[in-house]
Amino acid sequence: MSVLIVGSTALDSIKTPHAENPRLLGGSASHAAVAASFFGPVKMIGVVGDDFPKKYVALYKKHRIDLTGLQIQDGKTFHWAGEYEVNMNNRRTLLTELGVFEKFTPHLPDPHKQSAFVLLANIAPSLQHHVLDQMARPRFVVADTMDLWLNIALEDLLRLLKRLDGFVLNDSEAHQLTQEDNVFAAMKKLHRLGPKYIIIKKGSHGSILSGPKGHFICPAYPLPNVVDPTGAGDSFVGGLMGYLSTARGGIDTNIRRAMIYGSVLASFCCEGFGLNRTTRIKRADIDKRVAELERLTRF
Amino acid sequence: MSVLIVGSTALDSIKTPHAENPRLLGGSASHAAVAASFFGPVKMIGVVGDDFPKKYVALYKKHRIDLTGLQIQDGKTFHWAGEYEVNMNNRRTLLTELGVFEKFTPHLPDPHKQSAFVLLANIAPSLQHHVLDQMARPRFVVADTMDLWLNIALEDLLRLLKRLDGFVLNDSEAHQLTQEDNVFAAMKKLHRLGPKYIIIKKGSHGSILSGPKGHFICPAYPLPNVVDPTGAGDSFVGGLMGYLSTARGGIDTNIRRAMIYGSVLASFCCEGFGLNRTTRIKRADIDKRVAELERLTRF
Repeated sequence: MSVLIVGSTALDSIKTPHAENPRLLGGSASHAAVAASFFGPVKMIGVVGDDFPKKYVALYKKHRIDLTGLQIQDGKTFHWAGEYEVNMNNRRTLLTELGVFEKFTPHLPDPHKQSAFVLLANIAPSLQHHVLDQMARPRFVVADTMDLWLNIALEDLLRLLKRLDGFVLNDSEAHQLTQEDNVFAAMKKLHRLGPKYIIIKKGSHGSILSGPKGHFICPAYPLPNVVDPTGAGDSFVGGLMGYLSTARGGIDTNIRRAMIYGSVLASFCCEGFGLNRTTRIKRADIDKRVAELERLTRF
Repeated sequence: MSVLIVGSTALDSIKTPHAENPRLLGGSASHAAVAASFFGPVKMIGVVGDDFPKKYVALYKKHRIDLTGLQIQDGKTFHWAGEYEVNMNNRRTLLTELGVFEKFTPHLPDPHKQSAFVLLANIAPSLQHHVLDQMARPRFVVADTMDLWLNIALEDLLRLLKRLDGFVLNDSEAHQLTQEDNVFAAMKKLHRLGPKYIIIKKGSHGSILSGPKGHFICPAYPLPNVVDPTGAGDSFVGGLMGYLSTARGGIDTNIRRAMIYGSVLASFCCEGFGLNRTTRIKRADIDKRVAELERLTRF
Protein backbone atom coordinates (compact mmCIF):
# COMPACT_ATOMS: atom_id res chain seq x y z
CA MET A 1 0.00 0.00 0.00
CA SER A 2 1.15 3.58 -0.49
CA VAL A 3 1.80 6.28 2.09
CA LEU A 4 0.42 9.75 1.64
CA ILE A 5 2.72 12.35 3.18
CA VAL A 6 1.90 16.01 3.70
CA GLY A 7 4.31 18.52 5.21
CA SER A 8 6.70 21.29 4.34
CA THR A 9 8.91 21.28 1.26
CA ALA A 10 11.66 23.79 1.78
CA LEU A 11 15.16 25.01 1.12
CA ASP A 12 17.31 24.83 4.24
CA SER A 13 20.47 26.83 4.77
CA ILE A 14 22.32 25.14 7.58
CA LYS A 15 25.32 26.40 9.45
CA THR A 16 27.29 24.24 11.89
CA PRO A 17 30.61 24.94 13.61
CA HIS A 18 32.27 23.01 10.79
CA ALA A 19 30.47 24.02 7.61
CA GLU A 20 27.87 26.15 5.90
CA ASN A 21 25.43 24.70 3.39
CA PRO A 22 23.05 27.01 1.56
CA ARG A 23 19.70 26.01 0.07
CA LEU A 24 19.71 22.27 0.70
CA LEU A 25 16.57 20.26 -0.02
CA GLY A 26 14.65 20.26 3.25
CA GLY A 27 11.24 20.38 4.90
CA SER A 28 9.38 17.76 6.90
CA ALA A 29 7.68 16.25 3.84
CA SER A 30 10.93 15.97 1.88
CA HIS A 31 12.74 14.16 4.69
CA ALA A 32 9.80 11.90 5.50
CA ALA A 33 9.05 11.07 1.85
CA VAL A 34 12.63 10.15 0.99
CA ALA A 35 12.84 7.98 4.13
CA ALA A 36 9.55 6.24 3.30
CA SER A 37 10.54 5.73 -0.33
CA PHE A 38 12.90 2.87 0.52
CA PHE A 39 9.93 0.67 1.43
CA GLY A 40 7.16 1.32 -1.10
CA PRO A 41 5.19 3.90 -3.05
CA VAL A 42 5.00 7.42 -1.58
CA LYS A 43 2.68 10.24 -2.56
CA MET A 44 3.85 13.66 -1.41
CA ILE A 45 1.68 16.74 -0.88
CA GLY A 46 3.41 20.11 -0.66
CA VAL A 47 4.17 23.40 -2.36
CA VAL A 48 7.30 24.93 -3.86
CA GLY A 49 7.99 28.19 -5.70
CA ASP A 50 9.20 28.68 -9.23
CA ASP A 51 12.73 29.05 -7.86
CA PHE A 52 12.75 25.41 -6.71
CA PRO A 53 15.86 23.80 -8.20
CA LYS A 54 15.15 21.21 -10.91
CA LYS A 55 17.79 18.95 -9.38
CA TYR A 56 15.60 18.56 -6.30
CA VAL A 57 12.60 17.57 -8.42
CA ALA A 58 14.90 15.03 -10.05
CA LEU A 59 15.93 13.79 -6.59
CA TYR A 60 12.30 13.23 -5.57
CA LYS A 61 11.76 11.38 -8.85
CA LYS A 62 14.85 9.25 -8.38
CA HIS A 63 13.14 8.08 -5.18
CA ARG A 64 9.96 7.34 -7.21
CA ILE A 65 7.97 9.83 -5.08
CA ASP A 66 4.58 10.61 -6.66
CA LEU A 67 4.60 14.38 -7.20
CA THR A 68 1.10 14.85 -8.60
CA GLY A 69 0.17 16.47 -5.28
CA LEU A 70 3.15 18.83 -5.28
CA GLN A 71 2.04 22.34 -6.22
CA ILE A 72 4.48 24.59 -8.07
CA GLN A 73 3.42 28.21 -7.57
CA ASP A 74 4.66 31.61 -8.69
CA GLY A 75 6.88 32.94 -5.94
CA LYS A 76 9.62 31.77 -3.66
CA THR A 77 10.06 28.37 -2.03
CA PHE A 78 9.89 28.31 1.78
CA HIS A 79 13.43 29.07 2.97
CA TRP A 80 14.72 28.35 6.45
CA ALA A 81 18.17 29.18 7.75
CA GLY A 82 19.50 27.95 11.05
CA GLU A 83 22.68 27.51 12.99
CA TYR A 84 23.76 24.67 15.28
CA GLU A 85 25.95 25.08 18.34
CA VAL A 86 29.16 23.11 18.84
CA ASN A 87 27.44 20.17 20.52
CA MET A 88 24.65 19.95 17.89
CA ASN A 89 22.06 19.95 20.65
CA ASN A 90 20.85 23.51 20.28
CA ARG A 91 19.92 25.28 17.10
CA ARG A 92 18.71 28.78 16.49
CA THR A 93 16.74 30.05 13.55
CA LEU A 94 18.51 32.75 11.56
CA LEU A 95 15.83 33.32 8.93
CA THR A 96 12.36 32.12 7.93
CA GLU A 97 10.98 33.18 4.55
CA LEU A 98 7.61 31.48 4.12
CA GLY A 99 7.21 32.41 0.43
CA VAL A 100 4.53 30.36 -1.33
CA PHE A 101 4.16 28.27 1.82
CA GLU A 102 2.35 31.16 3.54
CA LYS A 103 -0.86 30.58 1.58
CA PHE A 104 -0.48 26.85 1.00
CA THR A 105 -3.67 24.83 0.92
CA PRO A 106 -3.05 21.13 0.45
CA HIS A 107 -5.18 19.77 -2.35
CA LEU A 108 -5.42 16.02 -2.83
CA PRO A 109 -5.67 14.54 -6.33
CA ASP A 110 -8.52 11.98 -6.41
CA PRO A 111 -6.40 8.80 -6.25
CA HIS A 112 -4.61 10.19 -3.17
CA LYS A 113 -7.88 10.29 -1.23
CA GLN A 114 -7.95 6.50 -1.05
CA SER A 115 -4.52 6.15 0.60
CA ALA A 116 -4.50 3.71 3.51
CA PHE A 117 -1.51 5.20 5.35
CA VAL A 118 -1.39 8.91 6.01
CA LEU A 119 1.53 10.76 7.53
CA LEU A 120 0.77 14.31 8.58
CA ALA A 121 4.38 15.43 8.91
CA ASN A 122 5.20 18.63 10.77
CA ILE A 123 3.09 21.49 9.38
CA ALA A 124 0.31 23.72 10.80
CA PRO A 125 -2.41 21.56 12.43
CA SER A 126 -5.07 23.38 10.35
CA LEU A 127 -3.42 22.02 7.19
CA GLN A 128 -3.16 18.57 8.74
CA HIS A 129 -6.92 18.77 9.37
CA HIS A 130 -7.51 19.92 5.81
CA VAL A 131 -5.78 16.83 4.44
CA LEU A 132 -7.80 14.50 6.65
CA ASP A 133 -11.01 16.26 5.56
CA GLN A 134 -10.29 15.14 2.00
CA MET A 135 -9.49 11.49 2.82
CA ALA A 136 -11.91 8.62 2.25
CA ARG A 137 -11.19 6.04 4.95
CA PRO A 138 -7.51 5.91 5.84
CA ARG A 139 -6.43 2.82 7.73
CA PHE A 140 -3.71 4.42 9.83
CA VAL A 141 -3.14 8.13 10.40
CA VAL A 142 -0.05 9.45 12.18
CA ALA A 143 0.89 13.06 12.85
CA ASP A 144 4.10 14.73 13.91
CA THR A 145 4.26 18.30 15.25
CA MET A 146 6.61 20.94 16.66
CA ASP A 147 6.71 23.33 19.62
CA LEU A 148 5.58 26.24 17.42
CA TRP A 149 2.09 24.72 17.00
CA LEU A 150 1.81 24.05 20.71
CA ASN A 151 2.43 27.75 21.21
CA ILE A 152 0.28 29.27 18.48
CA ALA A 153 -2.24 26.60 17.37
CA LEU A 154 -2.90 24.47 20.43
CA GLU A 155 -6.66 24.23 19.94
CA ASP A 156 -6.27 23.01 16.35
CA LEU A 157 -3.72 20.50 17.53
CA LEU A 158 -5.91 19.17 20.35
CA ARG A 159 -8.79 18.73 17.88
CA LEU A 160 -6.41 16.94 15.52
CA LEU A 161 -5.30 14.49 18.21
CA LYS A 162 -8.84 13.09 18.33
CA ARG A 163 -8.59 12.18 14.63
CA LEU A 164 -5.27 10.32 14.85
CA ASP A 165 -4.25 6.72 15.33
CA GLY A 166 -0.71 7.70 16.20
CA PHE A 167 1.01 10.82 17.47
CA VAL A 168 4.76 11.35 17.33
CA LEU A 169 6.42 14.15 19.29
CA ASN A 170 9.66 14.81 21.07
CA ASP A 171 10.21 14.74 24.81
CA SER A 172 10.24 18.51 25.31
CA GLU A 173 6.96 18.83 23.39
CA ALA A 174 5.44 16.02 25.45
CA HIS A 175 6.48 17.89 28.57
CA GLN A 176 5.03 21.16 27.27
CA LEU A 177 1.73 19.48 26.39
CA THR A 178 1.26 17.45 29.58
CA GLN A 179 3.34 19.24 32.22
CA GLU A 180 4.87 15.84 32.97
CA ASP A 181 8.65 15.44 33.05
CA ASN A 182 8.41 11.68 33.14
CA VAL A 183 7.82 10.28 29.64
CA PHE A 184 5.74 7.35 30.89
CA ALA A 185 3.46 9.63 32.87
CA ALA A 186 3.29 11.98 29.86
CA MET A 187 2.29 9.15 27.50
CA LYS A 188 -0.58 8.18 29.80
CA LYS A 189 -1.94 11.71 29.57
CA LEU A 190 -1.39 11.89 25.82
CA HIS A 191 -3.50 8.76 25.25
CA ARG A 192 -6.38 10.55 26.97
CA LEU A 193 -6.17 13.25 24.28
CA GLY A 194 -7.00 10.67 21.60
CA PRO A 195 -4.25 8.65 19.94
CA LYS A 196 -3.95 4.91 20.55
CA TYR A 197 -0.25 4.99 19.70
CA ILE A 198 2.05 7.57 21.26
CA ILE A 199 5.70 7.75 20.30
CA ILE A 200 8.03 10.07 22.16
CA LYS A 201 11.32 10.83 20.42
CA LYS A 202 14.35 11.45 22.61
CA GLY A 203 17.02 12.26 20.00
CA SER A 204 20.20 10.29 20.59
CA HIS A 205 18.49 8.47 23.49
CA GLY A 206 16.06 6.72 21.11
CA SER A 207 12.29 6.69 21.35
CA ILE A 208 9.49 5.12 23.38
CA LEU A 209 6.21 3.67 22.16
CA SER A 210 3.05 3.39 24.21
CA GLY A 211 0.37 1.37 22.44
CA PRO A 212 -2.33 -1.25 22.98
CA LYS A 213 0.36 -3.92 23.51
CA GLY A 214 2.27 -1.84 26.05
CA HIS A 215 5.58 -0.07 25.72
CA PHE A 216 8.52 -0.53 23.41
CA ILE A 217 11.91 0.97 24.16
CA CYS A 218 13.50 1.76 20.81
CA PRO A 219 17.23 2.54 20.66
CA ALA A 220 18.85 5.19 18.51
CA TYR A 221 21.48 3.85 16.14
CA PRO A 222 24.91 4.74 17.62
CA LEU A 223 26.58 7.61 15.77
CA PRO A 224 30.00 8.79 16.93
CA ASN A 225 29.72 11.84 14.65
CA VAL A 226 26.56 13.84 13.91
CA VAL A 227 26.99 16.08 10.87
CA ASP A 228 23.52 17.67 10.76
CA PRO A 229 20.49 16.52 12.76
CA THR A 230 17.99 18.61 10.74
CA GLY A 231 15.19 16.34 9.54
CA ALA A 232 16.12 13.37 11.75
CA GLY A 233 12.67 13.31 13.37
CA ASP A 234 10.96 13.55 9.98
CA SER A 235 13.16 10.74 8.66
CA PHE A 236 12.24 8.65 11.70
CA VAL A 237 8.51 8.94 11.18
CA GLY A 238 8.88 8.64 7.39
CA GLY A 239 10.82 5.40 7.73
CA LEU A 240 8.30 4.16 10.29
CA MET A 241 5.31 4.81 8.03
CA GLY A 242 7.09 3.49 4.94
CA TYR A 243 7.85 0.22 6.69
CA LEU A 244 4.34 -0.09 8.17
CA SER A 245 2.66 0.52 4.82
CA THR A 246 4.39 -2.46 3.24
CA ALA A 247 4.68 -4.93 6.11
CA ARG A 248 2.33 -7.89 6.27
CA GLY A 249 0.11 -8.19 9.33
CA GLY A 250 -1.43 -5.66 11.67
CA ILE A 251 -0.01 -2.49 13.16
CA ASP A 252 0.74 -4.13 16.50
CA THR A 253 2.73 -6.87 14.79
CA ASN A 254 4.90 -4.41 12.92
CA ILE A 255 5.15 -1.14 14.79
CA ARG A 256 8.22 -2.04 16.87
CA ARG A 257 10.26 -3.04 13.85
CA ALA A 258 8.87 0.01 12.05
CA MET A 259 10.33 2.22 14.80
CA ILE A 260 13.69 0.48 14.43
CA TYR A 261 13.63 1.23 10.69
CA GLY A 262 12.72 4.81 11.58
CA SER A 263 15.73 5.00 13.92
CA VAL A 264 18.00 3.76 11.17
CA LEU A 265 16.68 6.29 8.63
CA ALA A 266 17.18 9.05 11.22
CA SER A 267 20.78 7.89 11.70
CA PHE A 268 21.56 8.19 7.99
CA CYS A 269 19.90 11.60 7.95
CA CYS A 270 22.25 12.83 10.71
CA GLU A 271 25.35 11.68 8.84
CA GLY A 272 25.11 14.30 6.09
CA PHE A 273 23.81 17.79 5.48
CA GLY A 274 20.17 17.92 4.46
CA LEU A 275 19.37 14.75 2.54
CA ASN A 276 22.90 14.31 1.20
CA ARG A 277 23.56 11.03 2.96
CA THR A 278 20.06 9.53 2.85
CA THR A 279 19.78 9.96 -0.91
CA ARG A 280 22.98 7.97 -1.38
CA ILE A 281 22.03 4.83 0.53
CA LYS A 282 20.38 1.60 -0.64
CA ARG A 283 17.80 -0.58 1.08
CA ALA A 284 20.57 -3.07 1.90
CA ASP A 285 22.40 -0.37 3.91
CA ILE A 286 19.25 0.13 5.96
CA ASP A 287 18.76 -3.58 6.60
CA LYS A 288 22.38 -3.87 7.68
CA ARG A 289 21.90 -1.24 10.41
CA VAL A 290 18.65 -2.87 11.52
CA ALA A 291 20.55 -6.14 11.97
CA GLU A 292 23.22 -4.23 13.88
CA LEU A 293 20.60 -2.75 16.21
CA GLU A 294 19.42 -6.28 16.89
CA ARG A 295 22.93 -7.23 17.95
CA LEU A 296 23.38 -4.01 19.95
CA THR A 297 20.30 -4.62 22.10
CA ARG A 298 20.29 -8.40 22.52
CA PHE A 299 21.01 -9.77 26.00
CA MET B 1 32.48 -16.12 43.90
CA SER B 2 32.11 -13.15 46.24
CA VAL B 3 32.23 -9.44 45.46
CA LEU B 4 34.28 -7.08 47.53
CA ILE B 5 32.73 -3.63 47.69
CA VAL B 6 34.33 -0.50 49.07
CA GLY B 7 32.63 2.89 49.21
CA SER B 8 30.87 5.26 51.52
CA THR B 9 28.52 4.15 54.30
CA ALA B 10 26.40 7.09 55.31
CA LEU B 11 23.23 8.52 56.72
CA ASP B 12 21.27 10.41 54.08
CA SER B 13 18.65 13.05 54.86
CA ILE B 14 16.64 13.47 51.70
CA LYS B 15 14.09 16.14 50.92
CA THR B 16 11.86 16.01 47.87
CA PRO B 17 8.89 18.20 46.94
CA HIS B 18 6.67 15.51 48.49
CA ALA B 19 8.45 14.34 51.60
CA GLU B 20 11.34 14.65 54.01
CA ASN B 21 13.28 11.64 55.25
CA PRO B 22 15.99 12.11 57.86
CA ARG B 23 18.94 9.79 58.41
CA LEU B 24 18.17 7.00 55.97
CA LEU B 25 20.74 4.30 55.35
CA GLY B 26 22.81 5.57 52.43
CA GLY B 27 26.24 5.79 50.85
CA SER B 28 27.62 4.20 47.70
CA ALA B 29 28.78 1.01 49.42
CA SER B 30 25.43 0.48 51.17
CA HIS B 31 23.44 0.80 47.94
CA ALA B 32 25.87 -1.30 45.92
CA ALA B 33 26.20 -4.01 48.57
CA VAL B 34 22.45 -4.44 49.06
CA ALA B 35 21.95 -4.59 45.26
CA ALA B 36 24.74 -7.17 44.88
CA SER B 37 23.45 -9.25 47.80
CA PHE B 38 20.58 -10.67 45.73
CA PHE B 39 23.06 -12.67 43.65
CA GLY B 40 25.72 -14.04 45.98
CA PRO B 41 28.10 -13.32 48.86
CA VAL B 42 29.14 -9.70 49.39
CA LYS B 43 31.96 -8.33 51.52
CA MET B 44 31.63 -4.66 52.37
CA ILE B 45 34.45 -2.29 53.35
CA GLY B 46 33.51 0.99 55.00
CA VAL B 47 33.37 3.02 58.18
CA VAL B 48 30.57 4.20 60.46
CA GLY B 49 30.49 6.12 63.74
CA ASP B 50 29.23 4.96 67.10
CA ASP B 51 25.93 6.75 66.34
CA PHE B 52 25.20 4.32 63.50
CA PRO B 53 21.73 2.87 64.16
CA LYS B 54 21.68 -0.81 65.09
CA LYS B 55 18.71 -1.34 62.78
CA TYR B 56 20.95 -0.56 59.82
CA VAL B 57 23.53 -3.11 60.91
CA ALA B 58 20.63 -5.56 61.14
CA LEU B 59 19.58 -4.59 57.62
CA TYR B 60 23.05 -5.33 56.23
CA LYS B 61 22.98 -8.64 58.06
CA LYS B 62 19.54 -9.50 56.75
CA HIS B 63 21.15 -9.23 53.31
CA ARG B 64 23.97 -11.54 54.47
CA ILE B 65 26.56 -8.83 53.81
CA ASP B 66 29.92 -9.72 55.34
CA LEU B 67 30.70 -6.86 57.74
CA THR B 68 34.14 -7.95 58.95
CA GLY B 69 35.59 -5.08 56.88
CA LEU B 70 33.20 -2.48 58.31
CA GLN B 71 35.00 -0.30 60.84
CA ILE B 72 33.00 1.16 63.72
CA GLN B 73 34.86 4.17 65.08
CA ASP B 74 34.32 6.70 67.85
CA GLY B 75 32.59 9.68 66.33
CA LYS B 76 29.80 10.49 63.94
CA THR B 77 28.74 8.60 60.82
CA PHE B 78 29.12 10.46 57.52
CA HIS B 79 25.90 12.45 57.12
CA TRP B 80 24.69 13.93 53.84
CA ALA B 81 21.57 16.03 53.38
CA GLY B 82 20.19 17.00 50.00
CA GLU B 83 17.11 18.32 48.30
CA TYR B 84 15.58 17.36 44.96
CA GLU B 85 13.70 19.73 42.67
CA VAL B 86 10.19 19.06 41.42
CA ASN B 87 11.33 17.09 38.37
CA MET B 88 13.84 14.98 40.35
CA ASN B 89 16.53 15.84 37.82
CA ASN B 90 18.46 18.35 39.91
CA ARG B 91 19.56 18.01 43.48
CA ARG B 92 21.48 20.31 45.74
CA THR B 93 23.50 19.43 48.77
CA LEU B 94 22.25 21.04 51.96
CA LEU B 95 24.83 19.58 54.32
CA THR B 96 27.90 17.34 54.35
CA GLU B 97 29.28 16.17 57.71
CA LEU B 98 32.16 13.81 57.00
CA GLY B 99 32.51 12.60 60.60
CA VAL B 100 34.59 9.40 60.89
CA PHE B 101 34.69 9.21 57.10
CA GLU B 102 37.18 12.08 57.01
CA LYS B 103 40.06 9.91 58.20
CA PHE B 104 38.85 6.60 56.79
CA THR B 105 41.53 4.20 55.64
CA PRO B 106 40.07 1.02 54.19
CA HIS B 107 41.70 -2.00 55.74
CA LEU B 108 41.10 -5.42 54.22
CA PRO B 109 40.81 -8.51 56.45
CA ASP B 110 43.03 -11.27 55.02
CA PRO B 111 40.28 -13.38 53.40
CA HIS B 112 39.01 -10.27 51.57
CA LYS B 113 42.33 -9.89 49.75
CA GLN B 114 41.60 -12.97 47.67
CA SER B 115 38.28 -11.68 46.28
CA ALA B 116 37.89 -12.21 42.54
CA PHE B 117 35.42 -9.39 41.92
CA VAL B 118 36.13 -5.92 43.25
CA LEU B 119 33.78 -2.98 43.08
CA LEU B 120 35.36 0.35 43.95
CA ALA B 121 32.11 2.23 44.46
CA ASN B 122 32.13 6.01 44.56
CA ILE B 123 34.71 7.22 47.08
CA ALA B 124 37.97 9.21 46.84
CA PRO B 125 40.26 7.67 44.18
CA SER B 126 43.11 7.53 46.72
CA LEU B 127 41.03 5.13 48.83
CA GLN B 128 40.13 3.11 45.75
CA HIS B 129 43.88 2.80 45.09
CA HIS B 130 44.49 1.81 48.69
CA VAL B 131 42.05 -1.10 48.38
CA LEU B 132 43.66 -2.34 45.17
CA ASP B 133 47.09 -2.12 46.81
CA GLN B 134 45.93 -4.72 49.32
CA MET B 135 44.40 -7.16 46.84
CA ALA B 136 46.11 -10.37 45.68
CA ARG B 137 45.03 -10.99 42.06
CA PRO B 138 41.45 -9.84 41.50
CA ARG B 139 39.83 -11.21 38.34
CA PHE B 140 37.65 -8.20 37.53
CA VAL B 141 37.94 -4.71 39.00
CA VAL B 142 35.32 -2.04 38.33
CA ALA B 143 35.22 1.52 39.65
CA ASP B 144 32.51 4.15 39.80
CA THR B 145 33.21 7.82 40.48
CA MET B 146 31.58 11.26 40.77
CA ASP B 147 32.18 14.78 39.46
CA LEU B 148 33.79 15.84 42.77
CA TRP B 149 36.82 13.59 42.15
CA LEU B 150 37.17 14.87 38.59
CA ASN B 151 37.42 18.33 40.11
CA ILE B 152 39.68 17.74 43.09
CA ALA B 153 41.49 14.41 42.52
CA LEU B 154 41.84 14.07 38.76
CA GLU B 155 45.44 12.81 38.84
CA ASP B 156 44.57 10.05 41.32
CA LEU B 157 41.60 9.10 39.17
CA LEU B 158 43.63 8.98 35.95
CA ARG B 159 46.19 6.73 37.66
CA LEU B 160 43.35 4.54 38.91
CA LEU B 161 41.89 4.12 35.41
CA LYS B 162 45.05 2.24 34.39
CA ARG B 163 44.38 -0.34 37.12
CA LEU B 164 40.77 -1.07 36.18
CA ASP B 165 39.02 -3.59 33.98
CA GLY B 166 35.81 -1.57 33.95
CA PHE B 167 34.91 2.05 34.56
CA VAL B 168 31.35 3.22 35.18
CA LEU B 169 30.46 6.90 35.04
CA ASN B 170 27.56 9.08 34.05
CA ASP B 171 27.23 11.05 30.84
CA SER B 172 28.04 14.45 32.34
CA GLU B 173 31.19 13.01 33.95
CA ALA B 174 32.19 11.40 30.65
CA HIS B 175 31.76 14.77 29.01
CA GLN B 176 33.81 16.52 31.68
CA LEU B 177 36.60 13.97 31.40
CA THR B 178 36.83 13.79 27.60
CA GLN B 179 35.33 17.09 26.37
CA GLU B 180 33.15 14.97 24.08
CA ASP B 181 29.38 15.49 24.05
CA ASN B 182 28.81 12.37 22.04
CA VAL B 183 28.87 9.27 24.28
CA PHE B 184 30.34 7.03 21.57
CA ALA B 185 33.16 9.47 20.90
CA ALA B 186 33.66 9.83 24.68
CA MET B 187 33.87 6.06 25.20
CA LYS B 188 36.60 5.81 22.55
CA LYS B 189 38.70 8.35 24.47
CA LEU B 190 37.96 6.68 27.81
CA HIS B 191 39.32 3.34 26.58
CA ARG B 192 42.62 5.08 25.85
CA LEU B 193 42.82 5.99 29.54
CA GLY B 194 42.93 2.30 30.48
CA PRO B 195 39.70 0.36 31.02
CA LYS B 196 38.64 -2.37 28.58
CA TYR B 197 35.01 -1.94 29.60
CA ILE B 198 33.41 1.51 29.71
CA ILE B 199 29.82 1.95 30.85
CA ILE B 200 28.18 5.34 30.59
CA LYS B 201 25.03 5.79 32.68
CA LYS B 202 22.34 8.09 31.29
CA GLY B 203 19.76 8.00 34.10
CA SER B 204 16.27 7.33 32.78
CA HIS B 205 17.73 6.93 29.27
CA GLY B 206 19.56 3.75 30.26
CA SER B 207 23.25 3.03 29.82
CA ILE B 208 25.75 2.16 27.10
CA LEU B 209 28.58 -0.37 27.21
CA SER B 210 31.70 -0.24 25.12
CA GLY B 211 33.76 -3.40 25.42
CA PRO B 212 35.85 -5.90 23.46
CA LYS B 213 32.69 -7.26 21.82
CA GLY B 214 31.44 -3.81 20.80
CA HIS B 215 28.59 -1.80 22.19
CA PHE B 216 25.48 -2.74 24.12
CA ILE B 217 22.53 -0.37 24.46
CA CYS B 218 20.96 -1.09 27.84
CA PRO B 219 17.49 0.29 28.58
CA ALA B 220 16.35 1.75 31.88
CA TYR B 221 13.36 -0.01 33.40
CA PRO B 222 10.29 2.24 32.79
CA LEU B 223 9.19 4.04 35.94
CA PRO B 224 6.18 6.36 35.78
CA ASN B 225 7.00 7.66 39.24
CA VAL B 226 10.43 8.25 40.73
CA VAL B 227 10.33 8.66 44.51
CA ASP B 228 14.05 9.17 45.21
CA PRO B 229 16.88 8.58 42.72
CA THR B 230 19.64 8.74 45.37
CA GLY B 231 21.81 5.64 45.05
CA ALA B 232 20.39 4.50 41.69
CA GLY B 233 23.83 4.55 40.06
CA ASP B 234 25.35 2.63 42.99
CA SER B 235 22.52 0.09 42.80
CA PHE B 236 23.14 -0.29 39.08
CA VAL B 237 26.81 -1.11 39.45
CA GLY B 238 26.14 -3.23 42.58
CA GLY B 239 23.57 -5.32 40.71
CA LEU B 240 25.92 -5.58 37.75
CA MET B 241 28.84 -6.85 39.84
CA GLY B 242 26.62 -9.14 41.91
CA TYR B 243 25.29 -10.80 38.78
CA LEU B 244 28.73 -11.06 37.15
CA SER B 245 30.31 -12.65 40.22
CA THR B 246 27.88 -15.56 40.18
CA ALA B 247 27.21 -16.06 36.45
CA ARG B 248 28.89 -18.94 34.65
CA GLY B 249 31.17 -18.11 31.74
CA GLY B 250 33.34 -15.14 30.94
CA ILE B 251 32.75 -11.46 31.38
CA ASP B 252 31.85 -10.91 27.72
CA THR B 253 29.22 -13.65 27.89
CA ASN B 254 27.53 -12.09 30.89
CA ILE B 255 28.11 -8.36 30.99
CA ARG B 256 25.05 -7.40 28.92
CA ARG B 257 22.66 -9.32 31.14
CA ALA B 258 24.56 -8.01 34.16
CA MET B 259 23.79 -4.45 33.04
CA ILE B 260 20.12 -5.38 32.65
CA TYR B 261 20.11 -6.67 36.23
CA GLY B 262 21.83 -3.44 37.25
CA SER B 263 19.08 -1.43 35.54
CA VAL B 264 16.42 -3.38 37.39
CA LEU B 265 18.11 -2.85 40.77
CA ALA B 266 18.37 0.86 40.00
CA SER B 267 14.65 0.94 39.23
CA PHE B 268 13.74 -0.55 42.60
CA CYS B 269 16.09 1.91 44.29
CA CYS B 270 14.23 4.85 42.69
CA GLU B 271 10.86 3.61 43.91
CA GLY B 272 11.49 4.33 47.57
CA PHE B 273 13.48 6.62 49.81
CA GLY B 274 16.99 5.42 50.53
CA LEU B 275 16.97 1.63 50.50
CA ASN B 276 13.35 1.34 51.65
CA ARG B 277 12.12 -0.34 48.49
CA THR B 278 15.19 -2.40 47.60
CA THR B 279 15.33 -4.02 51.03
CA ARG B 280 11.75 -5.23 50.61
CA ILE B 281 12.11 -7.08 47.31
CA LYS B 282 12.97 -10.70 46.55
CA ARG B 283 15.10 -12.19 43.79
CA ALA B 284 11.89 -13.22 42.00
CA ASP B 285 10.80 -9.56 41.76
CA ILE B 286 14.11 -8.78 40.07
CA ASP B 287 13.82 -11.64 37.59
CA LYS B 288 10.30 -10.53 36.73
CA ARG B 289 11.50 -7.06 35.72
CA VAL B 290 14.38 -8.56 33.73
CA ALA B 291 11.83 -10.63 31.79
CA GLU B 292 9.76 -7.49 31.29
CA LEU B 293 12.77 -5.63 29.89
CA GLU B 294 13.20 -8.48 27.43
CA ARG B 295 9.64 -7.97 26.23
CA LEU B 296 10.03 -4.18 26.19
CA THR B 297 13.03 -4.26 23.88
CA ARG B 298 12.25 -7.19 21.57
CA PHE B 299 11.47 -6.37 17.93
